[in-house]
Amino acid sequence: MAASIIDSSIFQGIFSSDAMRAVWSDENRTTQYLAIERALAIVQARLGLIPQEAADEIVSHCHLDQIDMARLRQQTERIGYPILGVVTQINQLCRDKLGEYVHWGATTQDITDTATVLQIRQALELVEADLKRLASALARQASDHRLTPVIGRSNLQQAIPVTFGYKMAGILSAVQRHQERLQQLRARVLVGEFAGAAGTLASLETGALETQAGLCAELGLQQPVIAWHTIRDNIAECGTFLGLLGGTLGKLSMDVKLMMQTEVAEVFEPYHHGRGSSSTMPQKRNPIASCYIHAAISVVRQHSAALLDAMVADHERSTGPWEIEWIVLPEAFCLMAGALKQSIAVVEGLQVDAAAMRRNIDMTQGLVMSEAVMMGLGKHIGREYAHDLVYDLCREALARKLPLLELLVAHPEINKHVDRPSLQAMLDPANYLGQSGAMVDRVLARMVG
Amino acid sequence: MAASIIDSSIFQGIFSSDAMRAVWSDENRTTQYLAIERALAIVQARLGLIPQEAADEIVSHCHLDQIDMARLRQQTERIGYPILGVVTQINQLCRDKLGEYVHWGATTQDITDTATVLQIRQALELVEADLKRLASALARQASDHRLTPVIGRSNLQQAIPVTFGYKMAGILSAVQRHQERLQQLRARVLVGEFAGAAGTLASLETGALETQAGLCAELGLQQPVIAWHTIRDNIAECGTFLGLLGGTLGKLSMDVKLMMQTEVAEVFEPYHHGRGSSSTMPQKRNPIASCYIHAAISVVRQHSAALLDAMVADHERSTGPWEIEWIVLPEAFCLMAGALKQSIAVVEGLQVDAAAMRRNIDMTQGLVMSEAVMMGLGKHIGREYAHDLVYDLCREALARKLPLLELLVAHPEINKHVDRPSLQAMLDPANYLGQSGAMVDRVLARMVG
Amino acid sequence: MAASIIDSSIFQGIFSSDAMRAVWSDENRTTQYLAIERALAIVQARLGLIPQEAADEIVSHCHLDQIDMARLRQQTERIGYPILGVVTQINQLCRDKLGEYVHWGATTQDITDTATVLQIRQALELVEADLKRLASALARQASDHRLTPVIGRSNLQQAIPVTFGYKMAGILSAVQRHQERLQQLRARVLVGEFAGAAGTLASLETGALETQAGLCAELGLQQPVIAWHTIRDNIAECGTFLGLLGGTLGKLSMDVKLMMQTEVAEVFEPYHHGRGSSSTMPQKRNPIASCYIHAAISVVRQHSAALLDAMVADHERSTGPWEIEWIVLPEAFCLMAGALKQSIAVVEGLQVDAAAMRRNIDMTQGLVMSEAVMMGLGKHIGREYAHDLVYDLCREALARKLPLLELLVAHPEINKHVDRPSLQAMLDPANYLGQSGAMVDRVLARMVG
Amino acid sequence: MAASIIDSSIFQGIFSSDAMRAVWSDENRTTQYLAIERALAIVQARLGLIPQEAADEIVSHCHLDQIDMARLRQQTERIGYPILGVVTQINQLCRDKLGEYVHWGATTQDITDTATVLQIRQALELVEADLKRLASALARQASDHRLTPVIGRSNLQQAIPVTFGYKMAGILSAVQRHQERLQQLRARVLVGEFAGAAGTLASLETGALETQAGLCAELGLQQPVIAWHTIRDNIAECGTFLGLLGGTLGKLSMDVKLMMQTEVAEVFEPYHHGRGSSSTMPQKRNPIASCYIHAAISVVRQHSAALLDAMVADHERSTGPWEIEWIVLPEAFCLMAGALKQSIAVVEGLQVDAAAMRRNIDMTQGLVMSEAVMMGLGKHIGREYAHDLVYDLCREALARKLPLLELLVAHPEINKHVDRPSLQAMLDPANYLGQSGAMVDRVLARMVG
Repeated sequence: MAASIIDSSIFQGIFSSDAMRAVWSDENRTTQYLAIERALAIVQARLGLIPQEAADEIVSHCHLDQIDMARLRQQTERIGYPILGVVTQINQLCRDKLGEYVHWGATTQDITDTATVLQIRQALELVEADLKRLASALARQASDHRLTPVIGRSNLQQAIPVTFGYKMAGILSAVQRHQERLQQLRARVLVGEFAGAAGTLASLETGALETQAGLCAELGLQQPVIAWHTIRDNIAECGTFLGLLGGTLGKLSMDVKLMMQTEVAEVFEPYHHGRGSSSTMPQKRNPIASCYIHAAISVVRQHSAALLDAMVADHERSTGPWEIEWIVLPEAFCLMAGALKQSIAVVEGLQVDAAAMRRNIDMTQGLVMSEAVMMGLGKHIGREYAHDLVYDLCREALARKLPLLELLVAHPEINKHVDRPSLQAMLDPANYLGQSGAMVDRVLARMVG
Repeated sequence: MAASIIDSSIFQGIFSSDAMRAVWSDENRTTQYLAIERALAIVQARLGLIPQEAADEIVSHCHLDQIDMARLRQQTERIGYPILGVVTQINQLCRDKLGEYVHWGATTQDITDTATVLQIRQALELVEADLKRLASALARQASDHRLTPVIGRSNLQQAIPVTFGYKMAGILSAVQRHQERLQQLRARVLVGEFAGAAGTLASLETGALETQAGLCAELGLQQPVIAWHTIRDNIAECGTFLGLLGGTLGKLSMDVKLMMQTEVAEVFEPYHHGRGSSSTMPQKRNPIASCYIHAAISVVRQHSAALLDAMVADHERSTGPWEIEWIVLPEAFCLMAGALKQSIAVVEGLQVDAAAMRRNIDMTQGLVMSEAVMMGLGKHIGREYAHDLVYDLCREALARKLPLLELLVAHPEINKHVDRPSLQAMLDPANYLGQSGAMVDRVLARMVG
Repeated sequence: MAASIIDSSIFQGIFSSDAMRAVWSDENRTTQYLAIERALAIVQARLGLIPQEAADEIVSHCHLDQIDMARLRQQTERIGYPILGVVTQINQLCRDKLGEYVHWGATTQDITDTATVLQIRQALELVEADLKRLASALARQASDHRLTPVIGRSNLQQAIPVTFGYKMAGILSAVQRHQERLQQLRARVLVGEFAGAAGTLASLETGALETQAGLCAELGLQQPVIAWHTIRDNIAECGTFLGLLGGTLGKLSMDVKLMMQTEVAEVFEPYHHGRGSSSTMPQKRNPIASCYIHAAISVVRQHSAALLDAMVADHERSTGPWEIEWIVLPEAFCLMAGALKQSIAVVEGLQVDAAAMRRNIDMTQGLVMSEAVMMGLGKHIGREYAHDLVYDLCREALARKLPLLELLVAHPEINKHVDRPSLQAMLDPANYLGQSGAMVDRVLARMVG
Repeated sequence: MAASIIDSSIFQGIFSSDAMRAVWSDENRTTQYLAIERALAIVQARLGLIPQEAADEIVSHCHLDQIDMARLRQQTERIGYPILGVVTQINQLCRDKLGEYVHWGATTQDITDTATVLQIRQALELVEADLKRLASALARQASDHRLTPVIGRSNLQQAIPVTFGYKMAGILSAVQRHQERLQQLRARVLVGEFAGAAGTLASLETGALETQAGLCAELGLQQPVIAWHTIRDNIAECGTFLGLLGGTLGKLSMDVKLMMQTEVAEVFEPYHHGRGSSSTMPQKRNPIASCYIHAAISVVRQHSAALLDAMVADHERSTGPWEIEWIVLPEAFCLMAGALKQSIAVVEGLQVDAAAMRRNIDMTQGLVMSEAVMMGLGKHIGREYAHDLVYDLCREALARKLPLLELLVAHPEINKHVDRPSLQAMLDPANYLGQSGAMVDRVLARMVG
């Protein structure tokens, strides 16, 4: 029985992904605890801080299947944190009191934070893979539709033509920057924690920083410069990273939603039988994936603020702010996994109707090409005069619901300089795409791998 | 395997309550769907819109144990919403195609929204019960400590004495207003939805508003004035209500945390063996419950903003904003249930150390009573002169680390007017509690029930 | 030189209103300080707590033009709060040391909070007037277009017809609830504060609660039950109220933006020469006001969360949370005034193109009427068969780009029961508006005044 | 008359800085507009796209003192944006219609966005300078107090000793990472925009990307890969950067506030006459600066979320989201400037009372040294036995209110192994600082410049 949408047996596949849910599961969290206690014992035995025999015994019990999860829940509710429960269970599993060397010199938060970092590492790998796949899909659309005209819209008004590839490339450029941010973030956040009760490692009389260095090396993490029990910029940066990524997915879904409108009908989310359709209205094609993306990233945005809030930690171990992370971090990653999954599905399977795009360009009967015509005529009759003339003709076309072409062709000041075919060419959106293609190329040139 | 903290087998008892999790569970949500479809069939048969035989058959299958939840998940992932899956299953369970009368004239969102309202009703009942219990506990503390002096603190500086009862009564006054808000909110939010595809009930040629009225009556809800598929102020108000309530619990936990500081040690969360204690530091007494309250309400505050975001819905059925509610509403209620549970436990079991409170008042050796002394001496030597004199003596007491009393007694301008016992009385915090008791009484007089 | 958008000499008229900016100006805030000090002196003289002569002298100097604002800024930067500076200035203006009776028994926060409440009262009056005007404008549109068909849209897909009056009435129903919330809020928030250093009024040996009662009465505010220096649910509720109101304006602007799309073109913001138009694209008609509404309410939503944060106040006078209100409250009201101004302008001057609405209904050549046809034919050929038949014909119409009517008329199973005129009637949106009009009436019946 | 706290004549010096307010002033914004139009003319003349004579004439009028700001406000309110007003004014200032070449091929958003980037560049320079100064001050405190013992606190409970230098170094480590983030951010955000109506630069038939490249070079900005009118991750990243920085300042102010408590009294904000003091309570020393920091960063946190919201932009030029940036970006930078100013003042002038820190360590009469004693005795009597024995003695010391030392000295199992001086040494916090000094050194080694 789940109460959250992420764990709902009905909705979990929509709002998250199995892989990301697994990362943040009780089982995986506990597995990371065990991996850390194991690594700590190995390193401390190597350094001669605890007996090798103890380390061997501890290592042999650091397996999830040896942990009694029901008992762990009871311990957690009583103590408030699960670490001591895990340590107690390992201790009791070990023979000859060797278990007393488990968790040597560590504090609850050392294990919890390092486990969180290990989970973040796994989660970021999933995000990275998704970003790569999303980037590829966007690149393919950008490339395929490099010169497919679609009307550019400003303030939801038709403005001048762009290409659909250009639209995709713009979003792709942001995804590329997110990939860069992810790498920069990793260097800051994949750092272990091993610092003792107040961060000074006083709990180890000798070999303190050596243990810290060894433990981090064993886990493949960087050694911290100083304890970060209450210095949480890195955890919060995971939140802001997800928030930024969410913003881009939100933009993508916004455009897809708008382009799927009945009155626009330029692109469609991939069709699955029964999905997004209506039992009475066969004309409907709902942008279901875009809905889910929009909702997920809108929540992650606020999670991002909550993680900034968690930075306002008191003294050496905080009194409440830390627990904000417990609630928010798993959920933000899970929702983002859902949003990425839906985004990839949308872009990979997007149905692009180039003919409809062209029809929409034409629906104003040439008005959206007025800028192009002004520029084209400017060479013949002067830019300023061309502007005023075309502007007036556009208003006339609008009022009389006539094609701009006909008014242009009929105008004596124009037809004495330019013939119908030339005017038609000026009105051809394919001739007024500007740097759409070049910009697509600039973005595609940045693709890595 | 749960990924969210609310559903975590380790943490669920800490961050939520079983009762509130049950309200928002897949099972209960589906149960509400069935209750609505059942009520709809009953009402429509009564109105002669569908055959009584069909209604009887439908009603006989509107039971959770007849629904195949695994299949429902598959249907939901394919379609995007669970309602159609539920309707299909009921339909198939009915004999003789009578199931075709299920969901008559309804749309997916009618059932979803009405189910949400029914869940909100259950959730608000839990919140109301918790508020009542919290108010009682606060009232008892306010009453018990009506005149227990504790130093009032301004900007975290000791200022002048107040009473601990006064502190509790202040928080209680907010809880009382939350109870008032809850009633006002209920009148707005406990409203059914039955409006069809675009809210106009065109799907029922006859008996449309009668069905709506009957369905709402059957479910104990109010009839809506107009469809609210994309008019979401009421749902959002649930979020702001929880946010406001959270603010008060945050204030409570903040004060408890601060008063539990080693250096202050005036109150303590109730003790449970092993909870909030340290294996090496027996002097520690962690404010664990206050930590959880702080974290939960900090997240709910952001949920509140997310629900305001969900109000920006497009046209007659929104494209993404609605789903924000799906994610946020259950979680906000679940976290708030956890925060309320922890708050009740704290206030009911709070250990109040009146002696420590008095020691803290005395730690400045009379300085916190300077305002009282200024006022007391003012009658004898003039207010302004008294102010300047006492202010100077305070600075001297501070510099020389002497009790203010001794400096007062020794001063010739003072001791010629006032003797030591009178000065001692001026320095007695019990004589400078102002309207603490009266204010407690004013708040307690507002208790209902 | 202003740095904020609200005070920008360029943008202030767009993002706020002069009246609301005046409420939150330094001048008005200081004016309220003076009004409170004045009222306090009057009441305390009446109660015999200070000499009448002192009160008269104080009252004679409680005028803004007697305050040196430049000096007040210096005092504020030095002390951290402006109240002491104001009190000092009044004091110095008074003859014969009578000024020492100013601010008698009060603390900085008493004056600041009460001034804020007086400003909130003024601000809420502006909001109330705007709500009334907005409600009237919405009511007029709802009434004028009670039966003007427009396509209802679900998930941005054309669904079935509704009326434009129904759309307006839905938003109006929320505005009506906001008016109700405003009244309920007022009863809680228009409460004075007069409580002294730690809220207990110990600063007044006699006449404490009498002064409090008299001061509040003098200012037209309610007397507080208990000091609320750190009990801030009411101030926060102003924020959540504005957030909720913003959500409704956001929904309004969203619909206007979408309906103004080139491809939809059903309504238009009122036209002002040069506004929202393009120098090269005469066909553009930008929804400028809707843009501003969207932006303002998106920021207010976050302000709402910030005000919830400010509730987590410590002890008797908080250390930081209070100042959050100083930043956020004026800005939230100012931005909301801008959003309301723009919303009123939009609704009052909205250009509604009923013909375009009808054209859009027709663009699917009858498909959006399929539900109506299914129901109409059901009486003749059975509901289930009608559903399947119409559904298939719709798909055929979609594929062959033919009017649904032609396929219906041509079908032998249909034309043997129903003739062309009857089918045309089924396809007429005016015949499938359901309870649109009735729902409009239900909302209009709730209009007050 | 200002309504916002940032522009308030009373509060502006507290909540912002003059330099940052100047960056975001109407005057500076307009100055940047002019700088861009100037650079555009220069570059386009160089490329032969416009006459050199026109460029010279335009350049000669691109000065703020030639702009009529009052008229600009009117133009802005009418049109909705100020750029066209500026362009019109320049145009009219130019002789012989040469002004028609101003703004050649540009769109409103090109100039607005590029101006914003130029303002961000200025703002980031201010932030960078402040970060450098803050880092230096933190480094000095960390160095000066490298080994000054202060009690480490966990959950607001005294735990084990750390050093004050260690506390400062922890915060410094975050500031160093913010400096790193600032550099990484700059590479992404200091990018010009010049892309025309829909981003494709169709407005320039020739020399489009050359103009873009030249303009960016002229302004010292990077050339964009593709238009970013609706790709706003970089602007939003400014917000998340400020949010992260704010989190660190919030942590700093939280610790200062807590350490300034009357009951703790370990550090004090620098004293200014009259600031943070009370007219009746000379013992009070309010953490005024910390209050302002707390408030400012709490609002910036929500601004950060608002900027993420602004990323959800539609199509090629967004309809509302863009304007969110107009409101939020200046304010976030202004508030952060205030918070940085206050933080620098606090750290530079912080009064550290090492004796008080030591007194607080001693207030538990040795209990906070129990971990040290356990470890010290462990070598003599076995770790486990030492743990249990010391734990019991601590509880006894707590119950009997006796110094732990006396119980240790008196215990036969202990005094037969260890003498009083050795026990005293174990209880000396200076001997149990762990890696505090080493960690300080690790952080200081990262200081650049």
